[in-house]
Amino acid sequence: MHLTTLETPCLVLDKAKLQKNIRNLNARMKALGVNLRPHGKTAKNIDVMTMALEGQEGGITVSTLKEAEYYFEKGITDIVYAVGIAPVKLPRTLRLMDKGADITVLLDSVEQVRFVAEAAAEHGVTVPALIELDCDGHRSGITLEGDDLIAIGTLLHNEHGVSLKGVLTHAGESYQCRSTEAIRAMAEQERSMAVACAEALRASGLPCPVVSVGSTPTSNFAQDLTGVTEMRAGVYMFYDLVMAGLGVCDEGDIAVSVLASVIGHQKRKGWVITDAGWMAMSRDRGTSAQALDQGYGRVCGADGEPLDDLIVSGANQEHGIISDRNGKKIPWASCGIGSMVRILPNHACATSAMYDRYHVVDASGEVVDTWHRVNGW
Amino acid sequence: MHLTTLETPCLVLDKAKLQKNIRNLNARMKALGVNLRPHGKTAKNIDVMTMALEGQEGGITVSTLKEAEYYFEKGITDIVYAVGIAPVKLPRTLRLMDKGADITVLLDSVEQVRFVAEAAAEHGVTVPALIELDCDGHRSGITLEGDDLIAIGTLLHNEHGVSLKGVLTHAGESYQCRSTEAIRAMAEQERSMAVACAEALRASGLPCPVVSVGSTPTSNFAQDLTGVTEMRAGVYMFYDLVMAGLGVCDEGDIAVSVLASVIGHQKRKGWVITDAGWMAMSRDRGTSAQALDQGYGRVCGADGEPLDDLIVSGANQEHGIISDRNGKKIPWASCGIGSMVRILPNHACATSAMYDRYHVVDASGEVVDTWHRVNGW
Repeated sequence: MHLTTLETPCLVLDKAKLQKNIRNLNARMKALGVNLRPHGKTAKNIDVMTMALEGQEGGITVSTLKEAEYYFEKGITDIVYAVGIAPVKLPRTLRLMDKGADITVLLDSVEQVRFVAEAAAEHGVTVPALIELDCDGHRSGITLEGDDLIAIGTLLHNEHGVSLKGVLTHAGESYQCRSTEAIRAMAEQERSMAVACAEALRASGLPCPVVSVGSTPTSNFAQDLTGVTEMRAGVYMFYDLVMAGLGVCDEGDIAVSVLASVIGHQKRKGWVITDAGWMAMSRDRGTSAQALDQGYGRVCGADGEPLDDLIVSGANQEHGIISDRNGKKIPWASCGIGSMVRILPNHACATSAMYDRYHVVDASGEVVDTWHRVNGW
Repeated sequence: MHLTTLETPCLVLDKAKLQKNIRNLNARMKALGVNLRPHGKTAKNIDVMTMALEGQEGGITVSTLKEAEYYFEKGITDIVYAVGIAPVKLPRTLRLMDKGADITVLLDSVEQVRFVAEAAAEHGVTVPALIELDCDGHRSGITLEGDDLIAIGTLLHNEHGVSLKGVLTHAGESYQCRSTEAIRAMAEQERSMAVACAEALRASGLPCPVVSVGSTPTSNFAQDLTGVTEMRAGVYMFYDLVMAGLGVCDEGDIAVSVLASVIGHQKRKGWVITDAGWMAMSRDRGTSAQALDQGYGRVCGADGEPLDDLIVSGANQEHGIISDRNGKKIPWASCGIGSMVRILPNHACATSAMYDRYHVVDASGEVVDTWHRVNGW
């Protein structure tokens, strides 16, 4: 079955590109001597994660408890839940541990240590925790300033129901970098901050076996990972236009795309109307702040080859508006009414989240598999 | 069960506000003498649509065939599929008609008439079609200029397998209006353009029983609907911050919100971190172009009352960053670590699409029901 027989809009995953992306980062991490703990939040699918775990120690990262439950059910036991823990998430976390999952939680406050410890001690288990570090002012985490790090570390080490497993940070600001030199510098900032915190904990007599860092940009540009025990990344499996804009990949590496039908022409305006609106692409406009604004996505033919300078310049719920980014003439014959196009997404995580499955294709566009996603919480 | 026992993030629907919003627009349409054909794309749920159909003729609008199948299965037969038809959608449309659904398709080109007619004639049925009109340059549809309208109308009337049911337009640009006067003018533009096209068809000896217009802003501000046979709207059931910014509703009318847990404080920055990132809110930034930018959402306490001037100023996949829009001090005690907040969305359609269900609550926050959504295509 060829992809052009699929109903639109739908999500297409190029298996060869996926495999290449995964192998490239795995090889890079091997060369740097660091284990990769792939993030399950982009793919939300076991087939992709099994591929990503090839040659790795077997642990993964997740962004929701639903992912944790799903991946555990599929045989993955070593799971870092990399979003700060909340009280209402504890019953489900503890149930998963009862079943045999090795869940590590993340926290950055004394309050969190206390409510995790209380619930875990009452349940008769010990929950391992990583302390979240803020290496770049991006969102959560503590810095080396003040005494939070040692206070939280000491409490985790001493309280019943919790244990101190190490530190974790994410250089989320690397997505805003404007050059590969800036990403390299961000990778070193991420590494050195995490290592400094680990050393501060150890200097206080506290254990810190895990030093976990990661983002797709920094994992691709880090030159040295001394002191780091694991790298986390997720988007690298699929890549996307934001990553291409950062120079982390080429547009041709992007493994995921949205298949759409052309449903109209507005010839005077130079618009091609499709059935892939923001419900199909997501509202992500991640390239809007980059040098090359890709609108809601870059338009290719059904064969995956870029069509002139066409982008999705506008999106309503179920309508996409394609135009030429430079106002050049539309190749109307290449996007006739009823024909199909493929659209590369700004952000693979956001676009994929709009679908419950991937149509997996080979290089010739034959559909070779259907892989399901575990969305929601 | 009180909503604060729910796992976060999740979608909360206030039943009393929903009922009030529905009754208000129903009464307005009654006063204007026009039937309301509610749009199923916002709620994607039969319980909400059953409420919306109270006192109406029973027909609905949908944005996907999955909605059409779902609502038909729940007993609704008269369905307008209000997205331009594509060849790959025809087999499913015809199957649904075989089962007894009265589906009307939308089109704005001779090419579409031809492929619908061919498939329908081969299948031995007649597919009714509405001609999409472009009343405001928003996206699809034809104008009165040129001879497209009569050419498409004539073909629909004469070809086997299709029939001309009327015209349909949507004043999508009403979302960009800056005043209620502008919305009133847009409503009249929507009405008069649709009526003029209907008259042009009739003057050519073609039937045009249906003159369908609609959007939530224009349905709320239209003063006269002479010549219009039905109004379509969807967002009015829930309302959202974009509609509040347009003056279509008050913030207090918004029936849908996201319940989130506070997972951290960044005190030096004045940030409260929650577990409701863009996966929970959507990436919709519809208020960014309005006078009052609400970030990714307006923050309320778990009781639904607004908290100072707090908004979600930043969002990552599973992290939301709350701050005060004017940089004032955060009421830390009202959003302690582990506590819950409720966030009003920019765009009800986009935020609701991130969830598979609504937790329906009464005015006191007791969960009285769980209603499921039919997402995807």
